[in-house]
Amino acid sequence: MAFLFQVLCNLEFVLAHRGDIREKEFRKENGRMAISKKVKGALNGASWVRRMFEEGEELKRTYGEENVFDFSLGNPNLEPPPSLKKALKDLADHPITGMHRYMANNGYSETRKVIAEYLSEESGLPFEEKHIVMTVGAAGGLNVILKALLDEGDEVIVPSPYFMEFKFYIENSGGQIHLVETNEDFSLNLKEIEKAIGERTKAILINSPNNPTGVVYNRESLEKLSDLLKRKNKVLGKTIHLITDEAYRRIVFDGIELPIPFRYYPHTLRVTSHSKDLSLPGERIGYVAVSPLCEDLDEMMAALVFANRTLGFVNAPALMQRLVAPLQRNSVNIRIYEEKRDLFYNALKDFGYQIIKPQGAFYLFPKAPIEDDVAFIKELQSKRILTVPGRGFGKPGYFRLAYAVDKKVIERALPGFKEVAEKYGLMRN
Amino acid sequence: MAFLFQVLCNLEFVLAHRGDIREKEFRKENGRMAISKKVKGALNGASWVRRMFEEGEELKRTYGEENVFDFSLGNPNLEPPPSLKKALKDLADHPITGMHRYMANNGYSETRKVIAEYLSEESGLPFEEKHIVMTVGAAGGLNVILKALLDEGDEVIVPSPYFMEFKFYIENSGGQIHLVETNEDFSLNLKEIEKAIGERTKAILINSPNNPTGVVYNRESLEKLSDLLKRKNKVLGKTIHLITDEAYRRIVFDGIELPIPFRYYPHTLRVTSHSKDLSLPGERIGYVAVSPLCEDLDEMMAALVFANRTLGFVNAPALMQRLVAPLQRNSVNIRIYEEKRDLFYNALKDFGYQIIKPQGAFYLFPKAPIEDDVAFIKELQSKRILTVPGRGFGKPGYFRLAYAVDKKVIERALPGFKEVAEKYGLMRN
Repeated sequence: MAFLFQVLCNLEFVLAHRGDIREKEFRKENGRMAISKKVKGALNGASWVRRMFEEGEELKRTYGEENVFDFSLGNPNLEPPPSLKKALKDLADHPITGMHRYMANNGYSETRKVIAEYLSEESGLPFEEKHIVMTVGAAGGLNVILKALLDEGDEVIVPSPYFMEFKFYIENSGGQIHLVETNEDFSLNLKEIEKAIGERTKAILINSPNNPTGVVYNRESLEKLSDLLKRKNKVLGKTIHLITDEAYRRIVFDGIELPIPFRYYPHTLRVTSHSKDLSLPGERIGYVAVSPLCEDLDEMMAALVFANRTLGFVNAPALMQRLVAPLQRNSVNIRIYEEKRDLFYNALKDFGYQIIKPQGAFYLFPKAPIEDDVAFIKELQSKRILTVPGRGFGKPGYFRLAYAVDKKVIERALPGFKEVAEKYGLMRN
Repeated sequence: MAFLFQVLCNLEFVLAHRGDIREKEFRKENGRMAISKKVKGALNGASWVRRMFEEGEELKRTYGEENVFDFSLGNPNLEPPPSLKKALKDLADHPITGMHRYMANNGYSETRKVIAEYLSEESGLPFEEKHIVMTVGAAGGLNVILKALLDEGDEVIVPSPYFMEFKFYIENSGGQIHLVETNEDFSLNLKEIEKAIGERTKAILINSPNNPTGVVYNRESLEKLSDLLKRKNKVLGKTIHLITDEAYRRIVFDGIELPIPFRYYPHTLRVTSHSKDLSLPGERIGYVAVSPLCEDLDEMMAALVFANRTLGFVNAPALMQRLVAPLQRNSVNIRIYEEKRDLFYNALKDFGYQIIKPQGAFYLFPKAPIEDDVAFIKELQSKRILTVPGRGFGKPGYFRLAYAVDKKVIERALPGFKEVAEKYGLMRN
């Protein structure tokens, strides 16, 4: 639950920084301030999040942890596939001399080679090991990309709702986040993106399958995005990079094939991890792959490696680099997530909730029946159901459910959802 | 060797950024620049480092890798202790459900608890698990501390010679490095530190045992530093924090006891890792510990956890957190490093090189017999000996030897060192 609190802290950070008023108050108050003013802003502003967290903790103490239905965290509950466990055992039984030492900052050549082979097959592009940088998860990879790309004041366009950590990552490298609305169904709104592109636009960052909506951006929208970016590049005389956060790429449903952004736009950088497909989020293993068609490729790769080193990551964890190499085509049983989506989505629809049916990831993002999403999640809290308000993802009036939990937790929470639906007149029959 | 190149790139970065002249040239040249100007500055400036690296590579191709004596990298060649290997095997044989999942951003409670116990015993201070944040190595930990502390333009004082990555780490969080000279024997120069402290000073960052000199700052100098900081805090009406990079803390020789900075100054943050004591540098496992006496402690801990999360580390690798917990009192056989130091130091002294005898880490930092350290390391290169010039550590006129290599490499390189010493008239007998 401490984790939940830390995740939630970012919600209020954004609110706190809408104006500079609070910052000025801090300055006045804190002549002897020890920590960074910016960080202090984030921490001071989090009072309501702290309250929410404490109320959740209180619920667990009162009713027992098993009687509180926690959908607030995207922490996969599936175990890694047996192939991963076997690979770990093999390596522990037959350790290789030097296997825990430093390697080149971009990671083991062997690991990057198999990833390049996999990507070549997937995209039809001639990926080589030199196009890959192994990273400390996708979060590490995003920070590495942004450090490599951004100068003070550069803008990164992000379709909203969005994973709010993106804002911190962009600001870490001196950049500015430029949010654009998506369509009603959370698909890409090309008109809004076009309006947002300007002289300071350095990149657009998309996340598909999306956290928090579970929506997958389809092929047509990626083609149109590519056309738009190419046109803008010509007009503006520069290159806008497409950063694709594909952390949930293996988790797609209904037999759909996830469109491969590399196929549509040359200046594409993918960041992904094995946190979800191999259920290894705590191990921090992921990679950045740059399209072989990307402009100034050698310089880009050198910049990424430099950023990986100097941001203090140095290299992705050695042992995990070795373990995931042969498992590029493996994953946990995605069908399990799909069943949970079906169960949860169908039940909530029956209760009258408005939801876009997600085709990937492990989130639902229903509309709250009242405008005030924080008030509404408190209503759910009274049924011992923990969720995150939509404003935590730049979209007030909605709420996020992370269903990477045991099926039983979903089943046992449904009556609570139903009661709240009844209270707000959502049930039609 | 790609690693060497990446490490060396930082040397020229600093030179390139002494003036803004180059940056202006870049701007003119690169209207369509893809990557960050600052990063481009580092990469473009590295031409002589690249040449040096390529010459080293050429030597290895020509003479065979085993006939080139590479002292350029601090990559421990010892294997982790058997206790670590056994712990890995036990865990692989009996995996724990959920052991690869996310945990709280500050790390496993169990791991932090044993570290707190160890620190309490060592320092006599009441450390608790809440004072510890598990980090992605010491490099990750330093970035976390600096992010938590610094606002734009804040200064961090660093005694020189120093590990030059510190400059990047400080600048990542908008800070400025303020270098101060050490004494002739590389001990702390309190007068220089006093002169450097001003309104913008936020912290002083010391590294003992030191990279590149191997020098250990003694108890007396830490006491004096503490007195100085306390006095300055009063005068300036603020708190200057002491950041101690103790990555080499277990590697000390001659039976000396490493002074514990926690004992002398309340506002102390230690960062360390298991890269050297357990020979796990590639696994990126370390921690930040904050003195229980530190001002505004709760706020400081919250800021560190926030920084660990938002910089993209998220948490230290889960598996390694588990493995290192019971090994806080273990380490590789330090005596092996001490024997290498004795062998290398004594031989070089015999040849007439001027060296401060190091009492820790695995580096020697001799004076070059000519002013131009780059010219001198090229001389050594002609004997197939690879080293790093002192200017790579803020100290031209010296050179660094990393001796975490096989004893044979040292022995076989000695004739080359002797010939060069003879050429420059260092041999007296």
